[in-house]
Amino acid sequence: MRVVIPLYDRFTALDAVGPYEVLRLVPGAEVTFVADRPGPIQADSPALAMVATATYADVTDCDVLVVPGGIGTHDRLTDRPLLDFLVGMANTARWTTSVCTGSLLLGAAGLLAGRRATTHWARASLLARYGATHTPGRVVIDGNVVTAAGVSAGIDMALSLAERLTDRLTAEAIQLAIEYDPQPPFATGCAATAPQRVKDRVTAGLG
Amino acid sequence: MRVVIPLYDRFTALDAVGPYEVLRLVPGAEVTFVADRPGPIQADSPALAMVATATYADVTDCDVLVVPGGIGTHDRLTDRPLLDFLVGMANTARWTTSVCTGSLLLGAAGLLAGRRATTHWARASLLARYGATHTPGRVVIDGNVVTAAGVSAGIDMALSLAERLTDRLTAEAIQLAIEYDPQPPFATGCAATAPQRVKDRVTAGLG
Repeated sequence: MRVVIPLYDRFTALDAVGPYEVLRLVPGAEVTFVADRPGPIQADSPALAMVATATYADVTDCDVLVVPGGIGTHDRLTDRPLLDFLVGMANTARWTTSVCTGSLLLGAAGLLAGRRATTHWARASLLARYGATHTPGRVVIDGNVVTAAGVSAGIDMALSLAERLTDRLTAEAIQLAIEYDPQPPFATGCAATAPQRVKDRVTAGLG
Repeated sequence: MRVVIPLYDRFTALDAVGPYEVLRLVPGAEVTFVADRPGPIQADSPALAMVATATYADVTDCDVLVVPGGIGTHDRLTDRPLLDFLVGMANTARWTTSVCTGSLLLGAAGLLAGRRATTHWARASLLARYGATHTPGRVVIDGNVVTAAGVSAGIDMALSLAERLTDRLTAEAIQLAIEYDPQPPFATGCAATAPQRVKDRVTAGLG
């Protein structure tokens, strides 16, 4: 089973690594990080680069496509080679998925037209541009298109996907293997219920 | 504020990327991935390498040390250059931290003697070798040494640390920025409460 995760400059690393860490534990899974060039791809901080081992031309099909988001998304909404690659993957994939603003790339590729979908809460209004209906929810499933909310939501999405790809016991075991028993210290992780002052702090920029 | 995250062959990527994604959002933070050599360091699957931008000799001090775990930990328990680097960092750090079996490296470096600590649930018995007392908990704080449980627990740890490094509002905003409102699909993330059949599945190897 092939899992393909495209990388592009200024992607958000946790968007990609959360699902990777879950899906790589699915028996028989082979995860491939793909980009327009092989080698290190810079994440959305100068601290981190992750290595793409394949280019678009190297990969002709997959079982699961996972598109991460990041501040670099905006620059890629008209990146024809990337969008064509996403269409090609989606045509072969059992599951076409995204994390955070990765859904905007699916949208720009024409893959969300008429679909319910989600994205990072601060970018939710942009989904309508692509004919998608923003749907509240940490993981939104519409047919074989699965979109996750911001950044950390990719872990929840991938665990749900792991059950569909295997069986419940296997997915439960993967959750235990990564000891995913979250105990967030604050009650501010969801924009619908977070205090306005916390939202203001994020939208003003944390710096 | 300098955050140092050492990498070594066959580290677990989410152990490193969870805290990175939180701590890079702390105002003024600069995260550096360090290894015995610069360049790509292979994670514990063939799919992923992350780039170290500095070597041990390049970094003389830090504010926060985050040691990830992984199946590669075992091979590093007698890696003197790495262990010496950890001691040097801990001598300067305000916070010495680990995720998953990263705590065994802190232990091997002599940094857990007489401390309460945690690690991945399947390796908990090994902490005693280093004079540490295994303490149940997702995030265990003893003085300025903070150890997190397996893999995903680094996110919770880093958010707690973010509050201590800044203030509550900033840490709450970071949690919202990464939309950390976890909704794990199963109730099997904690070894103390997971059914035995799920634990058996993990310890037998998921493959």
